[in-house]
Amino acid sequence: MSWTDSSVVVVGTVAFDSIKTPFGERARIVGGAGTYIGWSASRLGVGTGLVSVIGEDFQQSELDLMSQAGMALEGIDRPVGGKSFFWAGSYHMDMNGRDTLETELNVLADFNPEIPAAWRGAKYLMLGNIDPNLQASVLDQMTERPELVVLDTMNFWMDIAMEPLKAVIARVDVLTINDEEARQLSGERSLIKAARAILAMGPRYLVIKKGEHGALLFHEEGGKLQYFFCPALPLEDVVDPTGAGDTFAGGFIAHVARTGSTDFETLKQGIVVGSALASFTCEAFGTEGIRAVTREALDARIAEFRRMMDWNGAGVEA
Amino acid sequence: MSWTDSSVVVVGTVAFDSIKTPFGERARIVGGAGTYIGWSASRLGVGTGLVSVIGEDFQQSELDLMSQAGMALEGIDRPVGGKSFFWAGSYHMDMNGRDTLETELNVLADFNPEIPAAWRGAKYLMLGNIDPNLQASVLDQMTERPELVVLDTMNFWMDIAMEPLKAVIARVDVLTINDEEARQLSGERSLIKAARAILAMGPRYLVIKKGEHGALLFHEEGGKLQYFFCPALPLEDVVDPTGAGDTFAGGFIAHVARTGSTDFETLKQGIVVGSALASFTCEAFGTEGIRAVTREALDARIAEFRRMMDWNGAGVEA
Repeated sequence: MSWTDSSVVVVGTVAFDSIKTPFGERARIVGGAGTYIGWSASRLGVGTGLVSVIGEDFQQSELDLMSQAGMALEGIDRPVGGKSFFWAGSYHMDMNGRDTLETELNVLADFNPEIPAAWRGAKYLMLGNIDPNLQASVLDQMTERPELVVLDTMNFWMDIAMEPLKAVIARVDVLTINDEEARQLSGERSLIKAARAILAMGPRYLVIKKGEHGALLFHEEGGKLQYFFCPALPLEDVVDPTGAGDTFAGGFIAHVARTGSTDFETLKQGIVVGSALASFTCEAFGTEGIRAVTREALDARIAEFRRMMDWNGAGVEA
Repeated sequence: MSWTDSSVVVVGTVAFDSIKTPFGERARIVGGAGTYIGWSASRLGVGTGLVSVIGEDFQQSELDLMSQAGMALEGIDRPVGGKSFFWAGSYHMDMNGRDTLETELNVLADFNPEIPAAWRGAKYLMLGNIDPNLQASVLDQMTERPELVVLDTMNFWMDIAMEPLKAVIARVDVLTINDEEARQLSGERSLIKAARAILAMGPRYLVIKKGEHGALLFHEEGGKLQYFFCPALPLEDVVDPTGAGDTFAGGFIAHVARTGSTDFETLKQGIVVGSALASFTCEAFGTEGIRAVTREALDARIAEFRRMMDWNGAGVEA
């Protein structure tokens, strides 16, 4: 599949991970935010254009699989003699935390994302978690303002680049962060107050990712804060949560792209679809889980979310 | 209000708390699981029969207010010369933990719950968090098996009295514990596996309370695990979470009592109603929040839960 008008431009890493969890370990498997986002969108039949950088060590066979799944790769730079970004981490026994064992930036150190000319009018743009100055430079390259720009970031950038981060946040539609990051960014302990403060910085929507505790979508309408809560599916086994947040983001923006609407109702659906896709990522190492998702398996899982959230309010109120 | 056939027998502490949170402090205010459960049920117009023990220091004026709200007090023992159970605690700045500063068992040290004869045929029984041997003795006193018995417990009893605890769990319908306790009780990290293991111990339902992350209701039907998730309402300010779990339990069992059904659908509603009532407890110190709840305020809050969980699944699946 090649680039189409409904494809999503995705800026994010394509890399290698070594991962250790209570369920086992894997050395130098394919990972990176861009990879997970691309695979996730592909499960909804939504094409992506990946903007990233890899080394000469990245396998052509992997790129072929990605391309076949709907990821356009002309935006991936591959500098001569370069080595791919590499992260090694080990999850705690209770899976509630992880330690970084090794980080080799390699080609990522000089990453300067350049959007292929043909993609600069894209309607949907996913800015993965990278330096906010680079995220801003991507926005500057777009010839038209996309219909929906989703920006992911993390506490690291709040610690060292809060002002550039706030500047780019002001230019996007959706910000995705976790609950502690929402507190850090806003200076508010209460998520309600944090959401109000962050929406006042510019974005139309705020997604607060709480991992195994689900996700919240905030939106302001007529001065009133609206919110939607989607739980995470309780799983038999969380084998490896690496990439779950990126899988979620990929499903979320891909649902918007396939629907063509950016209203609150559609974004709520995107939260559920993204959460359903993320649950598959958690069930296996690396991208194994998300790659194997069929349309039937996804539909069955979305139905599980519907059941888990379903209750009959009749007669409950006075 | 006095005891009626639809009242709920509640075994739990009626006591004093000194509480410090980032929002302020209160010294020796009225607290205790039985108190919160009774006040919570009263907001649904459901009477309770409290089985507890207090000291001579407990104010008659408080007992009068409880009685007026629908709590029958003939089951509260008041030994001569006794002092009420007292707990002092301080919440961390981020409200995610608390330190116990002082615990005086006082009259609770010799608590031996005795159910008034007129209450021994009660249809609904709430066994608050006390020694599992005492919980069992209460069950032994009932002349008929109640339609629904809810048992609350905590890690403390798992540490020192696992066998008596498992024995009493086998005799109840609903067990309410938090996620870490579910893991400890079952020896399983996955909540799905933990739920299966705990339901195999006897209860028909398992409620896993996750505080600010909501609550899960598990149930097995035809060998298949069913579950329902209810988020906690994001609040402007969590002023004092003391008693939120008890308020939740009180609303949960009172909803069952007022409905007269113990099926999965009714218990799901109970989870939402209990969560809505608990949100009021968190908004003020001690029992202040729950006491002030009107039917109108509760209905409005239940409607907020409905909105927060509402999404349109049409067209989301393939």
